[in-house]
Amino acid sequence: MQSLAERLRQQGRLGFVPTMGALHKGHLQLVQVARRRCDYVVVSIFVNPIQFGPNEDYRTYPRDFTRDQRLLKEVGTDVIFSPDVAEMYPVGYATCIEVKDLTRYLCGKSRPAHFRGVTTVVAKLFNIVKPHLAVFGQKDAQQAFVVKRMVTDLNFDVKILVVPTVREPDGLAMSSRNTYLTSDQRREATVLFRSLQLAENLIKNGERDAGRIKMAMRRLIKSSSQGKIDYIDVVDTEKLAPVKQIAGEVLVALAVYFGKARLIDNIIIRV
Amino acid sequence: MQSLAERLRQQGRLGFVPTMGALHKGHLQLVQVARRRCDYVVVSIFVNPIQFGPNEDYRTYPRDFTRDQRLLKEVGTDVIFSPDVAEMYPVGYATCIEVKDLTRYLCGKSRPAHFRGVTTVVAKLFNIVKPHLAVFGQKDAQQAFVVKRMVTDLNFDVKILVVPTVREPDGLAMSSRNTYLTSDQRREATVLFRSLQLAENLIKNGERDAGRIKMAMRRLIKSSSQGKIDYIDVVDTEKLAPVKQIAGEVLVALAVYFGKARLIDNIIIRV
Repeated sequence: MQSLAERLRQQGRLGFVPTMGALHKGHLQLVQVARRRCDYVVVSIFVNPIQFGPNEDYRTYPRDFTRDQRLLKEVGTDVIFSPDVAEMYPVGYATCIEVKDLTRYLCGKSRPAHFRGVTTVVAKLFNIVKPHLAVFGQKDAQQAFVVKRMVTDLNFDVKILVVPTVREPDGLAMSSRNTYLTSDQRREATVLFRSLQLAENLIKNGERDAGRIKMAMRRLIKSSSQGKIDYIDVVDTEKLAPVKQIAGEVLVALAVYFGKARLIDNIIIRV
Repeated sequence: MQSLAERLRQQGRLGFVPTMGALHKGHLQLVQVARRRCDYVVVSIFVNPIQFGPNEDYRTYPRDFTRDQRLLKEVGTDVIFSPDVAEMYPVGYATCIEVKDLTRYLCGKSRPAHFRGVTTVVAKLFNIVKPHLAVFGQKDAQQAFVVKRMVTDLNFDVKILVVPTVREPDGLAMSSRNTYLTSDQRREATVLFRSLQLAENLIKNGERDAGRIKMAMRRLIKSSSQGKIDYIDVVDTEKLAPVKQIAGEVLVALAVYFGKARLIDNIIIRV
């Protein structure tokens, strides 16, 4: 992959979409964006063990390479890079990359080693695939911020593009983990996006107190679902640190468990 | 530098020597090795603040850009890259790279954040300079091991070459910090290499007990200098962990203070 990438990079613009497979329309949207902007598109499929916590769903994470391959072909992928775990983390592996500050809150709080696993694997993939452009989804908002920070800090010669979340008709953000949902949970899971819309409306109508916004979101989720809230947060988009008063640009983000599915969603709001 | 590097890399083999300036014959040897093997040679001069501990010599580390520039020209350097601290670590900087295991002993023990600073800056420099080959000195043996490990683990497309230590006629390893020595200390400082030669002779004559070897080295240093020993260690060359019995390949390494100069030296011995 690395020597192929070195050649492709010299012949044209190289776009890259890192994924964990189990592809949905959100992923395919990222590939289409890369397709439009680049001469070559590489997609990686790698379920990265080090970004999962010990009690998380690494083993059960959905995998369907044949289907992924077909879908990627349909949207014009040139190369699928799908390494083994033992190739990526051989015996004696000892290195990690950490972005401080931005990983303190939100998912970084509930999943302590998660972003270290993400930045480490993304750096490895960037060194292997050598892209000019890498495309990430806004659904994983904190991941996008953290990867951008790493790219800036470590001087990776890669442009990061973040693409809006693709949603089901009823507003649920596309996610590989939606397949974990029972049909009842699936119906109730729309409450994530509805609670974000509620926050947006409250802010539009003048509410500036983050505590009251979070309270209203919490009430909506509890009253209309069995979802167990992991976090609801309103943070600034510089440090991703909780704010008390809405000002400038904020990220409203939440994580809610439905059974074994931990779903996340977010919106960015400017006032 | 990065866009120049991108162009140079496509035109020929790009060699790189990262330095902190205050150049001596050891550095120039690294440049000459790169010169022989590559079409273009880039040398960076950057006194990297994050690899110095709070009570170390970051502020007083010798700096002489004009002299360095002249010396580098003489050995055929194509590009000198000498960034500002504020360019390398701007406000909001938050990322670090850590190599575990290999940094637990030797200098990693006495200088807890040192290698994190080294790997972080080397990764940044690799991303900016995009070399095919990077040349390091054997004098900083642990650094060479740690950088190689990082390059393998993070899939950097850079070959690492480690060049034998260049010594003064009396055996003292060349170091920018030798300029800190008074003439008495300079005379006594030869004891570092003499103690390594003693270890080599003991092993050659059949000694296999690391404890006895270290004891003999310690005795020699104490009896013939005012040097304050930081550490003397015998470690394997896989994990850089202390060994009790000499077997296979070992690294014998030490750090000794002479006044404010902390000097290091090492040899690798195969039995």
